[in-house]
Amino acid sequence: MKNFIHDNFILETDAASRLYHDYASTMPIIDYHNHLSPSVLSNNDHFNDIVDIWLKEDHYKWRAMRTNGIPEEKITGNAPPREKFRSWADTVQASIRNPLYHWAHIEMTRYFGINDLLLGSETADEIYDLCNEVLADKNFSAWEIIKKMNVEILCTTDDPVDNLEYHEALAKKKDVSFRMYPAWRPDRAFKADNPVAFNKWISELESASNLEIKNLDDLKEALKKRHDIFHHCGCRISDYGMTTIPAEDYTDTEIAKYFTTIRKGVSLKGLELDSYRSAMLHFLIELDAMKEWSIQIHMGVLRNNNSHMFKQLGPDAGFDSIGDFSHAAPLIKLLDHLNKNNSLPRTILYPINPSDNAMIATMIGNFQDGTIPGKIQFGPAWWFMDQKTGMEEQMNALSAMGLLSRFIGMTTDSRSLLSFSRHEYFRRILCNLFGNDMEKGLVPMDFKLIGGIIQDIACNNAKQYFKFPA
Amino acid sequence: MKNFIHDNFILETDAASRLYHDYASTMPIIDYHNHLSPSVLSNNDHFNDIVDIWLKEDHYKWRAMRTNGIPEEKITGNAPPREKFRSWADTVQASIRNPLYHWAHIEMTRYFGINDLLLGSETADEIYDLCNEVLADKNFSAWEIIKKMNVEILCTTDDPVDNLEYHEALAKKKDVSFRMYPAWRPDRAFKADNPVAFNKWISELESASNLEIKNLDDLKEALKKRHDIFHHCGCRISDYGMTTIPAEDYTDTEIAKYFTTIRKGVSLKGLELDSYRSAMLHFLIELDAMKEWSIQIHMGVLRNNNSHMFKQLGPDAGFDSIGDFSHAAPLIKLLDHLNKNNSLPRTILYPINPSDNAMIATMIGNFQDGTIPGKIQFGPAWWFMDQKTGMEEQMNALSAMGLLSRFIGMTTDSRSLLSFSRHEYFRRILCNLFGNDMEKGLVPMDFKLIGGIIQDIACNNAKQYFKFPA
Amino acid sequence: MKNFIHDNFILETDAASRLYHDYASTMPIIDYHNHLSPSVLSNNDHFNDIVDIWLKEDHYKWRAMRTNGIPEEKITGNAPPREKFRSWADTVQASIRNPLYHWAHIEMTRYFGINDLLLGSETADEIYDLCNEVLADKNFSAWEIIKKMNVEILCTTDDPVDNLEYHEALAKKKDVSFRMYPAWRPDRAFKADNPVAFNKWISELESASNLEIKNLDDLKEALKKRHDIFHHCGCRISDYGMTTIPAEDYTDTEIAKYFTTIRKGVSLKGLELDSYRSAMLHFLIELDAMKEWSIQIHMGVLRNNNSHMFKQLGPDAGFDSIGDFSHAAPLIKLLDHLNKNNSLPRTILYPINPSDNAMIATMIGNFQDGTIPGKIQFGPAWWFMDQKTGMEEQMNALSAMGLLSRFIGMTTDSRSLLSFSRHEYFRRILCNLFGNDMEKGLVPMDFKLIGGIIQDIACNNAKQYFKFPA
Repeated sequence: MKNFIHDNFILETDAASRLYHDYASTMPIIDYHNHLSPSVLSNNDHFNDIVDIWLKEDHYKWRAMRTNGIPEEKITGNAPPREKFRSWADTVQASIRNPLYHWAHIEMTRYFGINDLLLGSETADEIYDLCNEVLADKNFSAWEIIKKMNVEILCTTDDPVDNLEYHEALAKKKDVSFRMYPAWRPDRAFKADNPVAFNKWISELESASNLEIKNLDDLKEALKKRHDIFHHCGCRISDYGMTTIPAEDYTDTEIAKYFTTIRKGVSLKGLELDSYRSAMLHFLIELDAMKEWSIQIHMGVLRNNNSHMFKQLGPDAGFDSIGDFSHAAPLIKLLDHLNKNNSLPRTILYPINPSDNAMIATMIGNFQDGTIPGKIQFGPAWWFMDQKTGMEEQMNALSAMGLLSRFIGMTTDSRSLLSFSRHEYFRRILCNLFGNDMEKGLVPMDFKLIGGIIQDIACNNAKQYFKFPA
Repeated sequence: MKNFIHDNFILETDAASRLYHDYASTMPIIDYHNHLSPSVLSNNDHFNDIVDIWLKEDHYKWRAMRTNGIPEEKITGNAPPREKFRSWADTVQASIRNPLYHWAHIEMTRYFGINDLLLGSETADEIYDLCNEVLADKNFSAWEIIKKMNVEILCTTDDPVDNLEYHEALAKKKDVSFRMYPAWRPDRAFKADNPVAFNKWISELESASNLEIKNLDDLKEALKKRHDIFHHCGCRISDYGMTTIPAEDYTDTEIAKYFTTIRKGVSLKGLELDSYRSAMLHFLIELDAMKEWSIQIHMGVLRNNNSHMFKQLGPDAGFDSIGDFSHAAPLIKLLDHLNKNNSLPRTILYPINPSDNAMIATMIGNFQDGTIPGKIQFGPAWWFMDQKTGMEEQMNALSAMGLLSRFIGMTTDSRSLLSFSRHEYFRRILCNLFGNDMEKGLVPMDFKLIGGIIQDIACNNAKQYFKFPA
Repeated sequence: MKNFIHDNFILETDAASRLYHDYASTMPIIDYHNHLSPSVLSNNDHFNDIVDIWLKEDHYKWRAMRTNGIPEEKITGNAPPREKFRSWADTVQASIRNPLYHWAHIEMTRYFGINDLLLGSETADEIYDLCNEVLADKNFSAWEIIKKMNVEILCTTDDPVDNLEYHEALAKKKDVSFRMYPAWRPDRAFKADNPVAFNKWISELESASNLEIKNLDDLKEALKKRHDIFHHCGCRISDYGMTTIPAEDYTDTEIAKYFTTIRKGVSLKGLELDSYRSAMLHFLIELDAMKEWSIQIHMGVLRNNNSHMFKQLGPDAGFDSIGDFSHAAPLIKLLDHLNKNNSLPRTILYPINPSDNAMIATMIGNFQDGTIPGKIQFGPAWWFMDQKTGMEEQMNALSAMGLLSRFIGMTTDSRSLLSFSRHEYFRRILCNLFGNDMEKGLVPMDFKLIGGIIQDIACNNAKQYFKFPA
């Protein structure tokens, strides 16, 4: 039997194969949005056990294991690593047609050189041992992984209060094949419905900025100071995670008053909360615009939906899902407000519900202004949508209602160093789409033309779009 | 010309053909949700005329006939059977690419042995006569149909006031090849916006339970008593049909008061109605949970939308359609409430709008708890979605965001004894999906592994999931 | 290399090729909804420059050019035509996988005989010159284009105040190969949120109807008078563009009062606005019903979303997008109201968001009444959805949940005389769908049967549906 992950995996046509191997495969990776640990990357960490690197922080896998009837003990609990791995192997076998099945086998192949076994109950122990042998090799470190995967630039996700010490440390190191930049993710500035968490963050921000925050203006000043420092560390991208898009009218006086309210330990609710969030979002995006950063808006996720498990495990534990909100009207109000005030930066919109694909694919067209190709982007399929059908639907919607050729392409959005192979997965899917269209005569059979578009989407567009420091 | 319904109908690849013929086709049928008549099944009825068995109760067909310009006289009116059949034959011919076209021809083939004719204007009379010849055979009875289709277990749909006499009668009969269980569908307990209908139901419930219902506690007691009896008759599954998911907060005192209001003949509205429904739903699901039943939630249908025809024909006459509601937030609130209180049973969620597929496919993941594989299920495509594209989209969404291998598979949800062949239709579509993926290299070309998954989805998973009496 | 637009463009199977060439290609075109200029058509205009006929009024192209980073100067500004054409050529090349790429090359082939070049940076000048040579030919006129494209009937889009002089003039001319009818589009009657625009329209309506409009009854009388004149000019179709469907209850007295309010220059808002719109919609559709016109409802677009560019360029400039509203409940209320009152005409529903496809495909079934095949129609994919995937999704949804064979098919909805080739595009896509299904055995391999359906959808159904004057 042919290896499962073989040269033409995903590539159904000769055209697709040629596009992938001649154009896509060798392009460097610009991973502009992920959740990797700056300390692991800066310290060039090694890993002891495949369970550490593969299962320990990956709530996608936890979720699948729970669905497969695995008890929590063997997921996030205290079961021995080998037992956890066996449960994971059982689950992989049960995950056929889920992206986990593809990802697991690509990662086994690319990182561990295991390409002749399928992960499942019968092979669990053998594969566990093989992986751990590879991990024991001194050369198998964070830097080696990144070098091997041809990653040129990556952006982590960081709170304004993060001191960026690891970013600074890494920048000073030699023989590093890649560049790591922070990305600005001020989630905690929006938590006005949770004064305890909010005020804790204000304290941290006071320390980080070395400023006392007595009022809204002080808060803005402190954020601006941190924003400057992020910029200095190479940050050129911000990220806003929004369940719904806040788009209320407000006056500065109102917002200043609301700030005092929160500082007194009282939650904002309803309209007041939305007004505060609208104002904060405007302020923060204006900062971004002034420095010509790009902004990301990740919208529509419902988080921490299982309160019983939230108490036990906290956030990011596999209990989030897709919302079904109406985003169009508030999104227009937000983008139009920024645009009118000359402070609409390059913007990447990430819907989570594929039912919003057509809406978003046309939304971006409202604010393209002819200054930068693809200034407003329909972001790549992410989280639940970061799989073959999800990617295809995102690219098909963007193709039909916008310009796919100007798409900035894939980012991993991942917590795992082993996820860089998802760029390969994305590129194979991309080449397969174009290859099929070429063989059907829907796009010209012109490899130079189409190969160029492939390379742009795989790497060049992102490189030009984000104005990272030289 | 090859017969239209041939051995490899739907099966596009060799792999699909092998999966279907070697693994799927011989599996027994567990039809866990349908609307068959317990009396017809218990009495082993025969049928006089193809119009009786095919058209008389099938509002899917009526709807298509109206769309085709057939006057009501020839649909639900008094036209002679042969004329009705001709109008139906015309409509079948006009229904190419609609599931009715496939269903009609599969049913003609499997039940009547007619596989060399296409139903249409020119063949209407010939096929009418052929079908009626088969029906005239003494052996063509309800039991024979069910035996021929290899149905092992089926669940009807029953109101708490139903006396279950036919279920009891059938259970005592000999030489019955299948088991029939009731399913608990307490729709009428939610009709607090229609005091006349509601109070009529309360009276019927008083009779059925032999209890006087003076207040909310009495109502609960009566429902519990009927629930016990349903359980005793083998019921292990309930069903809640909800246009929108009620998820209001309430106190027991409020609900007791609302109950008195309805009993006085006054409708509940708005928030009061939603609170009452929320409370009733919680109470009923807690009953289910205590007995380890599985629950079904069918959501989002807009019913009886043509008031003119509703007056003429009543409900279930072909005037229903798909709603476009936001279910995510209330569904989370409901499921989280139950889960927190340890009363979330095995749950099957059935959205009607395919735009909700991704939302539901991820929703189920929030409440998987590792106790039972696939505890929370994305129910099979139903009603308007119970067709090739609808099934494929449901299975593709479930695959990409959950574990298809744990799916409990098809149920007919039908009023017709001739619908069991839809399990064949489903299985062919399922095998075709996997077969295509195998030939494309997207799943391993391992027939034992994939064949096992096919058999699980076709039958084994449902059999294990529902704890029917031995 | 084979020409990009070749005989079997889009047609993937032999069956599809046969269906297209033997059945679809020669059918006349009934273009029942477009935005062509009556004066251009009546006067049989010629064109000076390819930029005039191709780019001047086409906001689809402007939008793509902005996305491609082209400055406004070269889009709607004063750059010389050849420069604009170069920017357009660059954009076409960047639009691979967007319908613009297909449309541009089909139009080059069918209208200008250029089928051996791909439009792009390198061919821009050559193609610019070739097109202008063709345009310089005296025979290349509006009438010749329409004749060449085999257009039999076309309907423009007209305000009640339009005097229809060009329709009348054309009707009197000889040697015209086609018929042009007006369509009634009373958008301005709904602008009760903009008293200045509304009252200006009332004045124009007073002139057009030669009636003084002092109150609501006068308005109705004036509209009725214009409606009669439209009917006299061959109008048999109306069109309502609705962001959301108004479906409020109201009394005539209230609406009369609201009318006075607007006339005083005061805007209606919220519930009052919706009530006014509901009443106006009912009144207008009742007029349509009395004359047995067909009605169109185009729903869900969000228009003029970029206020900065709206000030600069006005409406229809490429700044519109897809909304995400809940239409089902109000749509049922509207249609049921009309149906109950015996004033539901033949109705074509056009959703803009493909997430509404299933909802609409089932909505139409609620009001089919057996009088006319396909009385309530799911309108063809339009605007953003008027592309291969959009058309396929609309037809697949209609097939699965209704009767595709009764579909009235394509209309261009275009401002450009060069868009008639989109009927060819639609027909190729339609034949490709059926051809694929035939080769897969999903529909019978019966060319007479399927070819007949193709011809019905391509032309016959529309011809029978709209009762245009003989």
